[in-house]
Amino acid sequence: MINGKKVNGIHVEEAGSLLGNMSSGIELVKDRGSDASLHSCLHGKFVEDRFVYRQTFVIRSYEIGPDKTATMETLMNLLQETALNHVTGSGLAGNGFGATREMSLRKLIWVVTRVHIQVERYSRWGDVVEIDTWVDAAGKNGMRRDWIIRDYHTQEIISRATSTWVIMNRETRRLSKIPEQVRQEVAPFYLNRAAIATEKIDSEKIDKLTDGTAGRIRSGLAPRWSDMDANQHVNNVKYIGWILESVPLKVLKEYDMTSMTLEFRRECRQSNLLESLTSTTASLAHEHHCNNSNNNSINRRPDLQYTHLLRMQADKAEIVRARTEWHGKQKHKSN
Amino acid sequence: MINGKKVNGIHVEEAGSLLGNMSSGIELVKDRGSDASLHSCLHGKFVEDRFVYRQTFVIRSYEIGPDKTATMETLMNLLQETALNHVTGSGLAGNGFGATREMSLRKLIWVVTRVHIQVERYSRWGDVVEIDTWVDAAGKNGMRRDWIIRDYHTQEIISRATSTWVIMNRETRRLSKIPEQVRQEVAPFYLNRAAIATEKIDSEKIDKLTDGTAGRIRSGLAPRWSDMDANQHVNNVKYIGWILESVPLKVLKEYDMTSMTLEFRRECRQSNLLESLTSTTASLAHEHHCNNSNNNSINRRPDLQYTHLLRMQADKAEIVRARTEWHGKQKHKSN
Repeated sequence: MINGKKVNGIHVEEAGSLLGNMSSGIELVKDRGSDASLHSCLHGKFVEDRFVYRQTFVIRSYEIGPDKTATMETLMNLLQETALNHVTGSGLAGNGFGATREMSLRKLIWVVTRVHIQVERYSRWGDVVEIDTWVDAAGKNGMRRDWIIRDYHTQEIISRATSTWVIMNRETRRLSKIPEQVRQEVAPFYLNRAAIATEKIDSEKIDKLTDGTAGRIRSGLAPRWSDMDANQHVNNVKYIGWILESVPLKVLKEYDMTSMTLEFRRECRQSNLLESLTSTTASLAHEHHCNNSNNNSINRRPDLQYTHLLRMQADKAEIVRARTEWHGKQKHKSN
Repeated sequence: MINGKKVNGIHVEEAGSLLGNMSSGIELVKDRGSDASLHSCLHGKFVEDRFVYRQTFVIRSYEIGPDKTATMETLMNLLQETALNHVTGSGLAGNGFGATREMSLRKLIWVVTRVHIQVERYSRWGDVVEIDTWVDAAGKNGMRRDWIIRDYHTQEIISRATSTWVIMNRETRRLSKIPEQVRQEVAPFYLNRAAIATEKIDSEKIDKLTDGTAGRIRSGLAPRWSDMDANQHVNNVKYIGWILESVPLKVLKEYDMTSMTLEFRRECRQSNLLESLTSTTASLAHEHHCNNSNNNSINRRPDLQYTHLLRMQADKAEIVRARTEWHGKQKHKSN
């Protein structure tokens, strides 16, 4: 379908060329089955006329939490991996982490400002999930990236996510407009489709917590060397672990996080000690029981809603604000 | 080759039956290429008459460290994953984490007492690695598990590892002999082959560090909720991150860890605060330069050697002793 054809408005090479690059100059000495199928399994592949990128993952033994299901960090890691492979697979990749060639030339990088993820069901160890991702414009100078996670075998949608990205100069750390050349690279991939219907997206501002408003504060959280990513920054996904450190243990054990919204405010380097703040927004369990007529299993009200803040311990500068929603595990599973 | 044949000394079903279990009762609605090939890519497969289990992995974006290569934690995670899939693939898996059916019946679990890994070269983001694993007897009541990691495309061996396992009662937490029924389950899989030649294995006792002998001590290390595994314990692999917390930052940045030996002493639960101790065993850089005639790129002396201890902060009880060896990155890469 894509042999020398124009897709995404641009002329593309044969899909095989991706493989060609990977194995060029290397003698494949053993029979390992189809290399194209291995490549697609390991790196993912384009579907739907190259507008959607799809990758299949098995939930690994070390990606599950104490309840034996994939953790929120695992889901976010897999979303990130699929997104980066989308960029690499598109042939647009520059020398950075997800940056296009025209961005690399201008020392520009993508910076995520907001992520919202809804989880219907957490996969178990050994389960296979299929992740679709695509991008669209977000206003004049932003990009939206969406994801759908399906159970590979049942094709049931078990999670949906959306995120907003802007462009930053990696030296000045200032935000930048999208240069026309970059827009021309990415626009052919834009797909006008929403993983989460607009009215169901948590797009409300997240309140800033303070010592006065936070019910729980955990101080002295120290990023480890092993938390650093290839940019010598704390990887965004690691924030989730620290946010959870100020959530009551009882909630971590007895509830499933069914929705999370992260609003990124500032980068964090290794030397910074962090504080995690959490405040109950609402305990909705009672209301939930009394108001069943408005609920269904997909869109029902959460049992708990929290507001979070991760900030520097020294100067209290904000790193990330978050909102999470939780459903009791028993109730959740019986649905 | 294995259709109804006797391999590993026992009659085995068709390899297809594994797939059959996975997809039974499920309608596969889309054309996703060969499901057998997907299964092998995601879960691994037996090779060499079912004595060796092999799985292929791509190094993912979130599995690399600040130097953009796979971290030691990542390698250890992938070794664990291959080992568990080996047990599952063998059809022996009980209800536990790597336990066989006969073990599960007796509330027995495998416990690793020692791991030794040698790394010739760390893979980069997007590299594909192929991991082989197999087991053998270790004395009367132990099991040895070995691994070889190859660069998938060049087939170069880039890492070797070996480990020793014993059986423990999961309720009494006491060590147990291997029951005859368990031995009968696993013995058909034993392969008399060593990933690391005996004389090259670090089998020396690791000295116990104390406040007096440790050059560097990092206290107040707190396991996070997200460090817990499915057994509500700290996952063994997480220890590596804490061990590294007492290694000088300059070493983490400018050296590659080329060898690590872990000696596990005790389990750790979430509530325990930890201390990480490190002591220089020897600075071998000078000797290394003066003694080049004895060296080659595979087996050369390390530039640095450290002894480590991870212990409880409260009662100083030992959790894991470790020894690591390091080579300067530049020197390492020029070899």
